[in-house]
Amino acid sequence: MAKKTIIVFSGDLDKAMAAFIIANGAAAMGDEVTMFFTFWGLNILRKPEGAKVKKGFLENMFGKMMPRGAERLGLSKMNFGGLGAKMMKYIMKKKNVNTLTELIENAKALGVRLIACTMSMDVMGIKKEELVDGIDFAGVATYLAEADEANLNLFI
Amino acid sequence: MAKKTIIVFSGDLDKAMAAFIIANGAAAMGDEVTMFFTFWGLNILRKPEGAKVKKGFLENMFGKMMPRGAERLGLSKMNFGGLGAKMMKYIMKKKNVNTLTELIENAKALGVRLIACTMSMDVMGIKKEELVDGIDFAGVATYLAEADEANLNLFI
Amino acid sequence: MAKKTIIVFSGDLDKAMAAFIIANGAAAMGDEVTMFFTFWGLNILRKPEGAKVKKGFLENMFGKMMPRGAERLGLSKMNFGGLGAKMMKYIMKKKNVNTLTELIENAKALGVRLIACTMSMDVMGIKKEELVDGIDFAGVATYLAEADEANLNLFI
Repeated sequence: MAKKTIIVFSGDLDKAMAAFIIANGAAAMGDEVTMFFTFWGLNILRKPEGAKVKKGFLENMFGKMMPRGAERLGLSKMNFGGLGAKMMKYIMKKKNVNTLTELIENAKALGVRLIACTMSMDVMGIKKEELVDGIDFAGVATYLAEADEANLNLFI
Repeated sequence: MAKKTIIVFSGDLDKAMAAFIIANGAAAMGDEVTMFFTFWGLNILRKPEGAKVKKGFLENMFGKMMPRGAERLGLSKMNFGGLGAKMMKYIMKKKNVNTLTELIENAKALGVRLIACTMSMDVMGIKKEELVDGIDFAGVATYLAEADEANLNLFI
Repeated sequence: MAKKTIIVFSGDLDKAMAAFIIANGAAAMGDEVTMFFTFWGLNILRKPEGAKVKKGFLENMFGKMMPRGAERLGLSKMNFGGLGAKMMKYIMKKKNVNTLTELIENAKALGVRLIACTMSMDVMGIKKEELVDGIDFAGVATYLAEADEANLNLFI
């Protein structure tokens, strides 16, 4: 058994899927996995329905422009205003590949630790209430402590 | 001697070059290197001439839209519809820097193991016949087993 | 105490900030950190005022098109021709988050080793005089030697 950490900086559907496939694979083999969501990666953890929170003007605008949750993410390439993401999700459904939402549920069930980076939350104006349940909140020191004990550390 | 692994998720010319320069450098120093090509990274390994394979409509469309092989990739920035990639290749030729095609050949000669991710191939509708010779096919479990023994693991 | 290495391939403001926040965090905890700047990442280290150097036509054009230094970088997403980067910098200032320029200064003060990749410099036509003071110059062999001794190696 070994530890693994993955920094999820990207908020793209394809990169998020890659991150969870690796994380869940390792967790299924008995590893302790920590995923650290920062910057655009925080969008993956946003509740689709949002939450009633007080925000400043810029924070509000920023929040409105960024996708809310796993079902609304785009592809890093060939997204074509969301068409590429829709096409890929359609193909994956036909091939019985897990959706990102399912991958996130699996990760939680397998005990993968999901941490939202508090500093990025502050900069991007994202409040705890806007993120899904069952996650932790921490900063770079926590990440570094986990990474020091891990034998696989990726930045995605 | 140590093991190294590199996940090549990106299909951009510049990132692919960075991946192979690191891989070949390590292999030349006696390390065992495994490169794991997934999602857009699979495009790097596509045969330029294609292959006669049966595909569904969406798979076919997807395949036609993605670049076939190392010579047709674009830059991650400043590509300008392929002009940026051409300019960079022109400059590299003048400076006697290895092209990506040469880097891939060198990697094979140095014993770098190239693995195509079977799950991504399935999602993107890419068949074994469409990829270059001399590569292996495997999934995330194989990657994780390699990474567990390696002292350098990158996601590019 | 342990070693860490970060390859900074990206020249985006948000990714550069993530790289320095991790590097400075580790250095503050007593780790030896090496950052290796390659391809677009070199732009982070360019002097804003430039330098008088002889260049060929293409090198000159390339140099003019790429941002000069930490204050001129864009975001990897939602940049909108620089507006996104301005907005993020405005928010960070209001929240008393360090700017990238300050993070670079902190990195130097904490003893983080900044290395510019000489091969990328050659390809992109960037001369030593164009980069900020207090950095080293080296190639992939130096990176690999550092990574071999490190327990955290990221590619950003």
